[in-house]
Amino acid sequence: MDKRDGMNYAPKGKPNVVVKGGEFIFAVIGLNHGHIYGISNGLLEAGAILKLVYDPDIEKVKAFQKEYPQVMAAESEEQVLCDPEIKLVAGACITSDRAALGIRVMRAGKDYLTDKAPLTTLEQLDEVKKVISETGRKYAVCYSERLQCESAIYAGQLIEQNAIGRVVQVIGMGPHRLNAPSRPDWFFIKEKYGGILCDIGSHQIEQFLFYTGATDAKVVNSKVTNYNNPNYPELEDFGDATLIGNNGATGYFRVDWFTPDGLSTWGDGRTFILGTEGYIELRKYVDLAKEETGDHVFWVNKDGEHYINVTGQVGFPFFGQFILDCIHRTEHAMTQAHALKAAELCVKAELQAEWIV
Amino acid sequence: MDKRDGMNYAPKGKPNVVVKGGEFIFAVIGLNHGHIYGISNGLLEAGAILKLVYDPDIEKVKAFQKEYPQVMAAESEEQVLCDPEIKLVAGACITSDRAALGIRVMRAGKDYLTDKAPLTTLEQLDEVKKVISETGRKYAVCYSERLQCESAIYAGQLIEQNAIGRVVQVIGMGPHRLNAPSRPDWFFIKEKYGGILCDIGSHQIEQFLFYTGATDAKVVNSKVTNYNNPNYPELEDFGDATLIGNNGATGYFRVDWFTPDGLSTWGDGRTFILGTEGYIELRKYVDLAKEETGDHVFWVNKDGEHYINVTGQVGFPFFGQFILDCIHRTEHAMTQAHALKAAELCVKAELQAEWIV
Repeated sequence: MDKRDGMNYAPKGKPNVVVKGGEFIFAVIGLNHGHIYGISNGLLEAGAILKLVYDPDIEKVKAFQKEYPQVMAAESEEQVLCDPEIKLVAGACITSDRAALGIRVMRAGKDYLTDKAPLTTLEQLDEVKKVISETGRKYAVCYSERLQCESAIYAGQLIEQNAIGRVVQVIGMGPHRLNAPSRPDWFFIKEKYGGILCDIGSHQIEQFLFYTGATDAKVVNSKVTNYNNPNYPELEDFGDATLIGNNGATGYFRVDWFTPDGLSTWGDGRTFILGTEGYIELRKYVDLAKEETGDHVFWVNKDGEHYINVTGQVGFPFFGQFILDCIHRTEHAMTQAHALKAAELCVKAELQAEWIV
Repeated sequence: MDKRDGMNYAPKGKPNVVVKGGEFIFAVIGLNHGHIYGISNGLLEAGAILKLVYDPDIEKVKAFQKEYPQVMAAESEEQVLCDPEIKLVAGACITSDRAALGIRVMRAGKDYLTDKAPLTTLEQLDEVKKVISETGRKYAVCYSERLQCESAIYAGQLIEQNAIGRVVQVIGMGPHRLNAPSRPDWFFIKEKYGGILCDIGSHQIEQFLFYTGATDAKVVNSKVTNYNNPNYPELEDFGDATLIGNNGATGYFRVDWFTPDGLSTWGDGRTFILGTEGYIELRKYVDLAKEETGDHVFWVNKDGEHYINVTGQVGFPFFGQFILDCIHRTEHAMTQAHALKAAELCVKAELQAEWIV
């Protein structure tokens, strides 16, 4: 996987096996986004067994099987949904189809783990909530820019240890490399990808809620535009939003498709977490002009300026926790409410967004 | 001067003498903020002669004379304003008094250079504009976080050289150390300091206008609060704002008084300038946990990731240009319209700000 291409960014974490043998079996449906490789890696590293894969595009299935030779290709989605061994379906289909797939999965009695953004409209959100309530199944979301980023996990641990006091603000920057020719058609159709604040903005809103501990928030301003890609009129190449959490913490983020070709990775993702007693900065994927590696954590408090590179130090605890949550019907990895609140707010940010002319 | 204390931050630049002998003589009125030392240094380095100083507080005058033994103490403001040799009055009185002083200075036929923020209300702005128009004098503003910061000057040069294409967004972070016991009473009275978006926010709005080239902008959201300083109820310890320029460029900034004691300087000021072909990051006063020096410039474009430390490389061209502007009645250092547009927008940001509860 090329670190310069975010489309196929599939980080491998520190293995943390929580299940053994055939204790937890999952399948994959929907290979439209390369994130499915990262999600599969996370589940496999935690000890899950990958039994079946299904996608209508046989080429995508073949490529997936090349990476995971153990997986069998299913003839149909039906075959996956009817397999009683399969407890969880993971998927990365086209963003606007994710809710419908999840609903079919949950109605088949299985849990669902989708790539972000998990849905693109408030109507889908309502329907998803209804089916969760009816079936008791999980509609989980892999917000990879936190869950599959060791520096982002470490920041959560620092906050928990009270290293910076009460968190009052989070600023996130989520630039991405466009590499338009490598992208599928649906990527440039707003109704399908959901708009930039819904798509890559969802990572940012999830991080804002997580680090501040807010359980709800108001989007007080958001904007989107296409500054420099007239050939893709439905692409939003820039978006930003600012929020106020229900605990008074605030957030701002910018997302864009302007990563220059000269950057050594797909995006110079940053997170600035301001606390009453200090602050944290994450340089998630590169330390600009200094180190091409990622996971640089800087923090400052009364004791001084601190730096640690956490590559290989913390792993991705989400996947193991999530598998155990599926088995025990708990919510340690992420609550359902949190996963869907982030989804709701990113759809609202998109709906409210002013188009910059 | 202690680099840990922003109140007395008085950078000295690379000398760039533009006038000689007694060609350009100035005076100082108003010593309420330590910025007056930085302003005086800038003018002196460019060859101006400092003749008189006046402040009602004799202790402040004595301290000033200790730093600049050549300056004579005036008996009254009147004495300064009546001295025909003096072409310019520089000042850093209480923020809400700056407009009134400037108006007296301009009516006495002299130009005025004030510390930022240059005014605190829209009524003051109207009056200042009227007197500029009547007298033909200059009401100039030393926005020191750009004009007295070599990395900030260098960023302007990179943009002019088209290093990052068209600038579409600027994000600024302007944290400051509070050090409340060292601050005078007026600093905690909102009517006097103008609110955080007016005070330290003015630097940020000036930078947004300068780097994007916008000549006007709309403040589309702003917020302020006192998160953690209940003993100072009129202090706003946090503020942010987002703007849309009249050329479509956008801006966001956060200002706060949360610099932790462990930081090696008064504030980890950052500027992120996003262009269509690349971006620039300034670490203005420290490279966190790496270098206690300032003026670190990082930029990325199609050619790669670049880094330069520009300490001592570019100087502060504003002061020499401004002196020549005063002599030749030109506007090379900064236009009057730009200086007052930044002032207008920071007052508007403050007026519109939502108080976060």
